[in-house]
Amino acid sequence: LVVTALKMAAPYIRLYKGKTFVLKAGSAIFASEERTRALLEQVALLHQLGIRVVFVHGGGPQSTELQTALGIEPRIVEGRRVTCEKTLYVSTMVLNGLVNTRVLALCRELKLPAIGLSGVDCGLVKARKRPSEPVDFGYVGDILEVDADVLEKQLTLGYVPVVSPLSADNSGTVLNINADTVASALAVATRAEKLILATGAPGILEDPRNPRSLVSYTDLAGLESLKKTGSLEDGMMPKASAIESALNGGVPRVHVISFLEQDALLLEVFTNEGTGTLIVKGFESLTAEEQKAGALQLS
Amino acid sequence: LVVTALKMAAPYIRLYKGKTFVLKAGSAIFASEERTRALLEQVALLHQLGIRVVFVHGGGPQSTELQTALGIEPRIVEGRRVTCEKTLYVSTMVLNGLVNTRVLALCRELKLPAIGLSGVDCGLVKARKRPSEPVDFGYVGDILEVDADVLEKQLTLGYVPVVSPLSADNSGTVLNINADTVASALAVATRAEKLILATGAPGILEDPRNPRSLVSYTDLAGLESLKKTGSLEDGMMPKASAIESALNGGVPRVHVISFLEQDALLLEVFTNEGTGTLIVKGFESLTAEEQKAGALQLS
Amino acid sequence: LVVTALKMAAPYIRLYKGKTFVLKAGSAIFASEERTRALLEQVALLHQLGIRVVFVHGGGPQSTELQTALGIEPRIVEGRRVTCEKTLYVSTMVLNGLVNTRVLALCRELKLPAIGLSGVDCGLVKARKRPSEPVDFGYVGDILEVDADVLEKQLTLGYVPVVSPLSADNSGTVLNINADTVASALAVATRAEKLILATGAPGILEDPRNPRSLVSYTDLAGLESLKKTGSLEDGMMPKASAIESALNGGVPRVHVISFLEQDALLLEVFTNEGTGTLIVKGFESLTAEEQKAGALQLS
Amino acid sequence: LVVTALKMAAPYIRLYKGKTFVLKAGSAIFASEERTRALLEQVALLHQLGIRVVFVHGGGPQSTELQTALGIEPRIVEGRRVTCEKTLYVSTMVLNGLVNTRVLALCRELKLPAIGLSGVDCGLVKARKRPSEPVDFGYVGDILEVDADVLEKQLTLGYVPVVSPLSADNSGTVLNINADTVASALAVATRAEKLILATGAPGILEDPRNPRSLVSYTDLAGLESLKKTGSLEDGMMPKASAIESALNGGVPRVHVISFLEQDALLLEVFTNEGTGTLIVKGFESLTAEEQKAGALQLS
Amino acid sequence: LVVTALKMAAPYIRLYKGKTFVLKAGSAIFASEERTRALLEQVALLHQLGIRVVFVHGGGPQSTELQTALGIEPRIVEGRRVTCEKTLYVSTMVLNGLVNTRVLALCRELKLPAIGLSGVDCGLVKARKRPSEPVDFGYVGDILEVDADVLEKQLTLGYVPVVSPLSADNSGTVLNINADTVASALAVATRAEKLILATGAPGILEDPRNPRSLVSYTDLAGLESLKKTGSLEDGMMPKASAIESALNGGVPRVHVISFLEQDALLLEVFTNEGTGTLIVKGFESLTAEEQKAGALQLS
Amino acid sequence: LVVTALKMAAPYIRLYKGKTFVLKAGSAIFASEERTRALLEQVALLHQLGIRVVFVHGGGPQSTELQTALGIEPRIVEGRRVTCEKTLYVSTMVLNGLVNTRVLALCRELKLPAIGLSGVDCGLVKARKRPSEPVDFGYVGDILEVDADVLEKQLTLGYVPVVSPLSADNSGTVLNINADTVASALAVATRAEKLILATGAPGILEDPRNPRSLVSYTDLAGLESLKKTGSLEDGMMPKASAIESALNGGVPRVHVISFLEQDALLLEVFTNEGTGTLIVKGFESLTAEEQKAGALQLS
Repeated sequence: LVVTALKMAAPYIRLYKGKTFVLKAGSAIFASEERTRALLEQVALLHQLGIRVVFVHGGGPQSTELQTALGIEPRIVEGRRVTCEKTLYVSTMVLNGLVNTRVLALCRELKLPAIGLSGVDCGLVKARKRPSEPVDFGYVGDILEVDADVLEKQLTLGYVPVVSPLSADNSGTVLNINADTVASALAVATRAEKLILATGAPGILEDPRNPRSLVSYTDLAGLESLKKTGSLEDGMMPKASAIESALNGGVPRVHVISFLEQDALLLEVFTNEGTGTLIVKGFESLTAEEQKAGALQLS
Repeated sequence: LVVTALKMAAPYIRLYKGKTFVLKAGSAIFASEERTRALLEQVALLHQLGIRVVFVHGGGPQSTELQTALGIEPRIVEGRRVTCEKTLYVSTMVLNGLVNTRVLALCRELKLPAIGLSGVDCGLVKARKRPSEPVDFGYVGDILEVDADVLEKQLTLGYVPVVSPLSADNSGTVLNINADTVASALAVATRAEKLILATGAPGILEDPRNPRSLVSYTDLAGLESLKKTGSLEDGMMPKASAIESALNGGVPRVHVISFLEQDALLLEVFTNEGTGTLIVKGFESLTAEEQKAGALQLS
Repeated sequence: LVVTALKMAAPYIRLYKGKTFVLKAGSAIFASEERTRALLEQVALLHQLGIRVVFVHGGGPQSTELQTALGIEPRIVEGRRVTCEKTLYVSTMVLNGLVNTRVLALCRELKLPAIGLSGVDCGLVKARKRPSEPVDFGYVGDILEVDADVLEKQLTLGYVPVVSPLSADNSGTVLNINADTVASALAVATRAEKLILATGAPGILEDPRNPRSLVSYTDLAGLESLKKTGSLEDGMMPKASAIESALNGGVPRVHVISFLEQDALLLEVFTNEGTGTLIVKGFESLTAEEQKAGALQLS
Repeated sequence: LVVTALKMAAPYIRLYKGKTFVLKAGSAIFASEERTRALLEQVALLHQLGIRVVFVHGGGPQSTELQTALGIEPRIVEGRRVTCEKTLYVSTMVLNGLVNTRVLALCRELKLPAIGLSGVDCGLVKARKRPSEPVDFGYVGDILEVDADVLEKQLTLGYVPVVSPLSADNSGTVLNINADTVASALAVATRAEKLILATGAPGILEDPRNPRSLVSYTDLAGLESLKKTGSLEDGMMPKASAIESALNGGVPRVHVISFLEQDALLLEVFTNEGTGTLIVKGFESLTAEEQKAGALQLS
Repeated sequence: LVVTALKMAAPYIRLYKGKTFVLKAGSAIFASEERTRALLEQVALLHQLGIRVVFVHGGGPQSTELQTALGIEPRIVEGRRVTCEKTLYVSTMVLNGLVNTRVLALCRELKLPAIGLSGVDCGLVKARKRPSEPVDFGYVGDILEVDADVLEKQLTLGYVPVVSPLSADNSGTVLNINADTVASALAVATRAEKLILATGAPGILEDPRNPRSLVSYTDLAGLESLKKTGSLEDGMMPKASAIESALNGGVPRVHVISFLEQDALLLEVFTNEGTGTLIVKGFESLTAEEQKAGALQLS
Repeated sequence: LVVTALKMAAPYIRLYKGKTFVLKAGSAIFASEERTRALLEQVALLHQLGIRVVFVHGGGPQSTELQTALGIEPRIVEGRRVTCEKTLYVSTMVLNGLVNTRVLALCRELKLPAIGLSGVDCGLVKARKRPSEPVDFGYVGDILEVDADVLEKQLTLGYVPVVSPLSADNSGTVLNINADTVASALAVATRAEKLILATGAPGILEDPRNPRSLVSYTDLAGLESLKKTGSLEDGMMPKASAIESALNGGVPRVHVISFLEQDALLLEVFTNEGTGTLIVKGFESLTAEEQKAGALQLS
């Protein structure tokens, strides 16, 4: 059994050895230590098989929770939250402190050598404050540049970077950036083989209310249609633009998988059927070799 | 002027190039961004001159503040604070999140390439929970081992490690450890040339109420006397044992300087008179070469 | 399924990554291209997972066949075959030419980077002609020394060495040596983690006529008993001394597995139950760590 | 005497240090162990002087001999031999086994560190079966590509590669290729300074029946004329095309020397007069520097 | 004081770390051991701060002195001195022997690791004898090429090259070359950040008789004007062409400073005001970055 | 011829490749450019064959000549010359300037990459002034220590160090040291295979007035006898102590050869008979291997 499986996994192991995967875990997962550990166990296996994993996390619900506990009123402008100074104070503590350390502690338990980073360390992410016109969203940043060398060095040391999305501009002002956006930018900068978004949903759904309407495979054009037909309401909208910029930036495959599904990450990487949704730039734009590699995954 | 000064600093530059200094900044400094920046500017200069600096921070007052804001009642047993789960939650956010990120953000502003770490990252500090007998202090750890290689690798990459004292045991339980203790252990493990404790006091005072009673220079025996005569009440007591273990572990010089005094760090490193208190193991135990080097500092 | 299996295999992957296995394939396997390919597919998987494999082959039956075809009468003295000049001529062609090339050709098909060697190349095996007293067995050698560096260099280049047992003395006289003996010596010289003998039998049998009498696990003392009770008649006798010298030379584990059993090599390496016979030096002589590692395999 | 000679050799030593020579020894030489040893002694001296030598051998007569012994009828189609499966079986044993091992055994005697290779090892030569139309020559290959890196790695390890011309396609089918053709392709791939064909003739003769009609020096155009005037009958015709492809592929000098002449290889390399035939692409196509270097050799 | 100064010097240290400065000391300085030591102390400090210094010296007055002592009549043709064989003999002894060794001996005293070189060593400067038409100046050379690699290797070993301007042609004829010319060529070849000419004058003067008429800052055009207006009489004329060729060869800044002024070298490098004369190619030709860097120096 | 010779030289080439020879050329040779060139041509050949040569020169007669020209009266005390300040001035110019540069210029002509050094450069020789009691010999030094690393670095760069014996103490006082003494100390420090003293005599003579009384081979004991019997009068006495300290310091072979004999250096290195005198520590003290190697030379 084990052996049959290993033999089935063999072509994928060969395909991905030495490649970089950027995995972004949706912040809901951190509500459950069990689920987080289960995901990190999968990361540990990829790491052992020689795949270089960059782990990006968010921390929205945890921030909201602390904000509430501290009695900080969220300011919403045009339906979007504003990062005032107090909110940034909370985000810094939750993202760079609480969530990052929890992930590192679990890695420690799993003997997975991991190093905590955020966009602030070593100049990893160079951002700038979003213009205060037309709306001032406060300490929210847009990414100007990622210094891939920073990740490269830690990966070469054999560490799994655990990355909080908090970043800074060059004068040291800390800025909040959406974790999906950061993960996408890191994937582009490290020329990652895959960007994997682990979410609470089974993947992209044609009908968000119907979990059985999973889209297994699509491309940029398909994603555009889904946006137009309103399939991507809610949390999936911002992910869509992260997916698009990853694909446009040269990441060959983006996956949306569910962290609720057991072993979804390994299933995605090591089986033919995969799991969740695979998005490519456009099937016709793949090179012959990529199509062949794709065949492994898609046939 | 500049030039005369450079020439005076030259022997120290030669002496310390390529050496490691562990600098521990007392948490009170972080109440003032100006003071923190001023200290980091000095660190940046040392870094430029080829000295390898490990920066360790605490975060006591900030933790107390957040604890209060969250309405967590501090539990005190036998006059010492207990780290219950909620307190650990607060410490994690404050130390690994708030304070560490603030330091990194200032380093970013100063173009000093710095990487945030805590004892949890990459197995840097291996601790164990302090036995619950006779008193259960909760999530408080004792250091079993420091993996100096983790710091060595980051220093070799040219980064200044900014280290939070939070650590973990091997099963991933996060544990609180006194920052002076951690700094001392890191200094021993990295065979640091100097352990420098930057505090709110001008150094060790013979009479804590009299800032003019500064002890400029002492050794382990002298420190023992000071303890007996009651000069080390208050916050200096725990520092004394960090100092002792650093000296016993082979760190040749420990300095207690004031972060309130302008340029105290540079004065200490680059001038003959130094500043604050210098503690060595015992003058007679120095080798001829160390005595000669000491002469530079002490004559 | 694949994923469950991968997770079960994970501790073994971690355990054996970067370690060296010496695998000796009994010459009967080369009668079947299918079986040889099946074994090499397993080698290829080990290679992909980062295990360094040295593949040793014999070629007895193939030699006999060619000898017959060429009308060379085998000379038998005291029940053992003598390697006369003509026999050596045949062995050279069969071992270094026919069998070695067939294995390399299959590796080529499997995209496994392999390099053919024999004890003659680069001074790999330094042997001397067995003394002609009391019986002159002709061009038969005894191993004086193995230059492990030769294998080390090819392994470091990422190649799987495919080794024919033919060797030479320092004046360039080619000498025939038993393949099990060579495999054992290479395992000792390369400080291999495992010596694996793939044979036509399911392992060591208590009763050679009863395939169900498999000895799953024994040590040197047990092997000695088996020899005394006559369980090791036939081809297993010479293997016994190869096994003994490997264990005495520091190879922690020797396995006798069947190349007739599907995936026997992978089963042995990656499952708890293993397959065939495992022989260790003596359970009590294992270090605590080895016992722990052994527990993985043996519990 | 020795010293005068060393001084005469000095400019050639300087010229060729670190350069690669591909030497192809015609299979007739292997009939005499003395002659083979004498040639390899010369190779050993080149190796000591820092010249990187790749030694290519054939094995035609030895194959015919074994074929006869085994009663395999050679099939001749259109005057050329067909490599049926049995013939390939014989070639594999003779080329990769018998001849290769004999050369290695002599290298062992001479303390020359040598490694046996064929086009099958490590993907060295990538060939394809010659189309069966118009004539099916059986297991005969045409070279598609040489992986020079394979030789480069062994040369860097300080080994002399001893290369059998047997090759394979990517699905592992072993294919017979003319040894001159392989030597020429290896010379091109390794950017060799010289391709040297050691034959039973004194070089290229204007009149093959007159050993005194040696052509000392010619170019591609001259070679073409010799072909037209019928000077290249017999075994020299296939060599001519190997010579042409080497020169067209960028090898600056091809030499045809005699292995019957004592020290012919050293004479060629270290004396002004050389020996045998030197063929260049075209004197006028040489760069100024090559002409100058040529002057050393030709004046 | 020291500390304020260090902080003021910090941006310059950052700017010049790892950069190369070529410093040419006018031969008059060697008349005073004190002045030479003072200059070398400044060099030692630059070296310690990580700046790579190439020290070029002349030796005119010392040569004249020895010539006189030996009763060699200087031959002057068209107002310029001719280097006859005897003069070359004197120059060789004075430049490569006397002056070079004196500088090295002082470096030894200052613990500055220095290596003596001249254009003759390791093929550093490839020159040719100046044509004997229209005037035969004897053993005077013009530089054809500088092998920057020679300096690069010594700098990488951490040595300060102390370079005498004596050079040679490829047949080993030693040739005299003006030290300013050699310094300029070395600066171009090593892509030096600065060429610094330390002279007995305070810099370039508008009126050579008025030491207060110092030109602080000019460019090639300005230099041209000064030449036309006759400001550069005497020894400054030949320096002008060395300056021009350095600037035209890509050296961004040339400085003329006084070795009579205390700490002039350090003042120039580490202060905003600098000292002596700074010459750039043309302010408008600087890149934005250079202008910014220039701002440091010039504002 | 060339080829026979190469083959005869081959075992010596193998024996000495990568080894270090320290060659000291007696200063009389520099009176003849032809003889110097002839010796350097031999050095160039050794260099090409991969032998690392350190070339040490003296300059006595040249110094005397210049001293006379300058009218400096040599001061002789107890029959030995005193190095007064003026004499040191002369030695500096002659040794570090004139002779060193002449050798370098010839190396340049011969395309031999050479670098001029003296004991003053890079701290190569650390000496101290000989005590002024009982006789003050002025600026004469005794060697305290050789920094072999300085030579090692230049040899590794592929340069032939051309070393003048002038040295210095750590405060930079230049000191004169006998060139044989320096050569011996360099040979010991670099663990040289041979120290070769090239002199005007054919070797050590039993009777200095009879050139036919050459001692071909002796050891320390034999040298002692020769001293006692008065065979070593004149210039050979100081050489004797250099020879003794080399042998006692671990240099296995010292040779005294004649620079008047054509190709004496090559004859010594590459022929069985050698030339001049070979001195070893004691034949019985050689290891088996050395005796075997010696057999090459001595049989």
